[in-house]
Amino acid sequence: MFESAEIGHQIDKETYDAAVPELRQALLEAQMELRQQARFPVFILISGVEGAGKGETVKLLNEWMDPRMIRVENFDQQSDEELARPPYWRYWRRMPPKGQIGIFFGNWYSQMLQGRVHKHIDDAQLDQAIDSAERFERMLCDEGALIFKFWFHLSKQQMKARFKALEDDPRHSWRLSPLDWQQSKTYDRFVRYGERILRRSSRDYAPWYVVEGVDERYRSLSVGRILLEGLQAALKTKNRPQPHPHAAPVAASIDNRGLVDSLDMTQSLDKDSYQQQLVAEQARLATLMRDKRFRRHALVAVFEGNDAAGKGGAIRRMAEALDPRQYRIVPIAAPTEEERAQPYLWRFWRHIPGRGQFTVFDRSWYGRVLVERVEGFCSQADWLRAYNEINDFEEQLTDAGVVLVKFWLAIDQQTQLERFQEREQNPLKRFKITEEDWRNREKWPLYVDAVNDMVDRTSTEIAPWTLVEANDKRFARVKVLRTINDALEAAFARKPK
Amino acid sequence: MFESAEIGHQIDKETYDAAVPELRQALLEAQMELRQQARFPVFILISGVEGAGKGETVKLLNEWMDPRMIRVENFDQQSDEELARPPYWRYWRRMPPKGQIGIFFGNWYSQMLQGRVHKHIDDAQLDQAIDSAERFERMLCDEGALIFKFWFHLSKQQMKARFKALEDDPRHSWRLSPLDWQQSKTYDRFVRYGERILRRSSRDYAPWYVVEGVDERYRSLSVGRILLEGLQAALKTKNRPQPHPHAAPVAASIDNRGLVDSLDMTQSLDKDSYQQQLVAEQARLATLMRDKRFRRHALVAVFEGNDAAGKGGAIRRMAEALDPRQYRIVPIAAPTEEERAQPYLWRFWRHIPGRGQFTVFDRSWYGRVLVERVEGFCSQADWLRAYNEINDFEEQLTDAGVVLVKFWLAIDQQTQLERFQEREQNPLKRFKITEEDWRNREKWPLYVDAVNDMVDRTSTEIAPWTLVEANDKRFARVKVLRTINDALEAAFARKPK
Repeated sequence: MFESAEIGHQIDKETYDAAVPELRQALLEAQMELRQQARFPVFILISGVEGAGKGETVKLLNEWMDPRMIRVENFDQQSDEELARPPYWRYWRRMPPKGQIGIFFGNWYSQMLQGRVHKHIDDAQLDQAIDSAERFERMLCDEGALIFKFWFHLSKQQMKARFKALEDDPRHSWRLSPLDWQQSKTYDRFVRYGERILRRSSRDYAPWYVVEGVDERYRSLSVGRILLEGLQAALKTKNRPQPHPHAAPVAASIDNRGLVDSLDMTQSLDKDSYQQQLVAEQARLATLMRDKRFRRHALVAVFEGNDAAGKGGAIRRMAEALDPRQYRIVPIAAPTEEERAQPYLWRFWRHIPGRGQFTVFDRSWYGRVLVERVEGFCSQADWLRAYNEINDFEEQLTDAGVVLVKFWLAIDQQTQLERFQEREQNPLKRFKITEEDWRNREKWPLYVDAVNDMVDRTSTEIAPWTLVEANDKRFARVKVLRTINDALEAAFARKPK
Repeated sequence: MFESAEIGHQIDKETYDAAVPELRQALLEAQMELRQQARFPVFILISGVEGAGKGETVKLLNEWMDPRMIRVENFDQQSDEELARPPYWRYWRRMPPKGQIGIFFGNWYSQMLQGRVHKHIDDAQLDQAIDSAERFERMLCDEGALIFKFWFHLSKQQMKARFKALEDDPRHSWRLSPLDWQQSKTYDRFVRYGERILRRSSRDYAPWYVVEGVDERYRSLSVGRILLEGLQAALKTKNRPQPHPHAAPVAASIDNRGLVDSLDMTQSLDKDSYQQQLVAEQARLATLMRDKRFRRHALVAVFEGNDAAGKGGAIRRMAEALDPRQYRIVPIAAPTEEERAQPYLWRFWRHIPGRGQFTVFDRSWYGRVLVERVEGFCSQADWLRAYNEINDFEEQLTDAGVVLVKFWLAIDQQTQLERFQEREQNPLKRFKITEEDWRNREKWPLYVDAVNDMVDRTSTEIAPWTLVEANDKRFARVKVLRTINDALEAAFARKPK
């Protein structure tokens, strides 16, 4: 969930200076329109890692917009009056009225996160707290509110560096003392439970936006653009009171760099290393699958990727290591009539392996947020809610002991072109290339956005995406096998629940 | 939540025999239309108290409708295959396809309820399970499903009687052995946690319907009518995929008897008893409010009732006992401009007392499901979701130690007429009666439905409604005071959390 906020996004000064005046003007206009319509309030929730620029961003928003119509609410220690009443009273009493913006610096998520980090509450209680927050937000949105939830992020290393620089700055003494944050365990727990909160409380009507905080210009521009798009969309839909549909998730594309762009696509293996490593990983897989601890688990491997990225080849190399009775490959194509008569996820649920079994999905439930999104086969509302449904689904799998590995096989456009041409010239492979493949290729930028959003929203601690640099098929195949083996080993090492 | 399902509803044979043919015909037609449209599946969840006629009702539905398009799914012991997979797999594999009806006899709620009754899980885990169920149902409804959730109910005495009669019948050996149910503790726990489940998982798109199970004809007709109305409404709205709005909650009005009708309105107090009891209860209240244990609590008293039912007088008798600094009376009229700029509940949250304080609401947040519903001041969607929001709100209050007492002061139509006329003739009271009061009076039957639904959906273990027979003002005033005193005493006796 945080991967694409750890790749060092940045915007150069020139670009920034060119973009800001227009953005500020548009934000101001939106704010005026918001006040004039006075139809709904706007909530901006500020959360995230220490040192990731939360305070600076709030300050900047007040500079960019009219601060008379923004209330910044800080929720630190509860007052006596607040302690004497139900916990949410403090939020009710400081809600922005219709037409205004409330920036909640520290909010209902802060308290539960601190509580879990410091072990005052357990997972079940955290889930209860998340559930309360969700009911609260649902009510707000049913009443017309527009909610933005920002998570400002830094990798641990980025944080430490920034933290060092800020050490003598008195502004950042928020909740956790700096001492806390110096312990890398605190960071780990904070990010781990933060991820759980984001995963469970990101809803189509109130999604989380993860913003990398290391580069001030990137951070500021990202937040400004997200706010502007969301505000403009909400101001346009004049018939309330359904929850405002949020703009599509904004991929980290302001600097034209997504996660996939940050891969080192030159990685490769020579023939000898490949043979050696392949055989070793295949043997390892065969052994792991026969391990008696596998009976407590199941294995699900999901393969997605660009056309011609080599999914089939990678799956075959994995299958070679195994007895055909040990695995099942489920190719996902257009749904059958029976499948169309059921909810979207039904056709995947039916193939979920039992304990001790292994299922490979050649394409998967991610079709909804990839091809169906790009081709318009489903409505925006459908694919927006799919991120949640998929996270729920995968959580159910991993809770039941399923080891879930998800691969995105990435190639660059040039490599794809070469492979397409090669396929057309090879009579044995010609069947693999169709008009549709060429059409899809034209939608490359749309797929880039879809893949970035997908990884941002569904790469979770319990079911992370593995991006596979697949320009070199050998490298890709070994990486796939090794990832599966590592995941199995890690699962075996964990104590059974 | 179960009050109106314990008043001995019944339908005589003649009425039943007259109603059934038409109902069956209409149900069959709806079922055919459902199959023809094949736009959405129907889920019927069967839950509730042992012996309340669950099995008989399912049997009957199969007789009334075309059983070839109904799948009855029984979820008892999990199979080996099911145990090897995530818990919800068993539901996914038996879902009705679009155009068909699935009756889930035992379902996702059964397991969590059993688990909590038998202390295998605690409250937080129960809430997690409820949350999972809610996500699942939300997904189903987003995909177009129509869900009916039935809770078949019996009071403990009704159950014991019925249970005795069924003792030798082999059909009712479902989950809990009869032995379990003979322990009255099991019934108590089952109903208590059942109520928690209903309260938290009743949503406008998938509400619970509580059906009193003691009279077979009443039970059958209720279920049949609820299904028919829901089906017809869903078949009409051809533009999916928003969750189907359910028909308005069906009050237990099939036999024209609601909770209020079951009150004994002849109850009264003579002047001497009144004086004596009033003074005693006032003294008791004064003492309780000075008790040091009150510092851990707060008191909120809600007064609703028919026009001219005597709310003001009852409140005054309570106030007489106290120092004005000890309480605040908040009269609820039309919202101010500031209040209209906020979510509905905001104007009540702002008056929530702190610990050691007492607030009286003269009319309250129930306005939304009473006057606003009846007068059409808000949309049906708004008042339907209000039941949940109110239950959430009140749970937050009681979780924070607030003692919440809610009064519905009920008078009959004749008494109201007499009081209206008396007011008109009395120069000191003439200001209390307006054209609007006369207009409201014409909507008496609409208010009866609204009050029944309100009590059914918001009288909860944590915040029960007290219906006050108010034809006799003296009786009403004493009952109000005594109820408050009893509630305070009960709260003081409970161990602090």
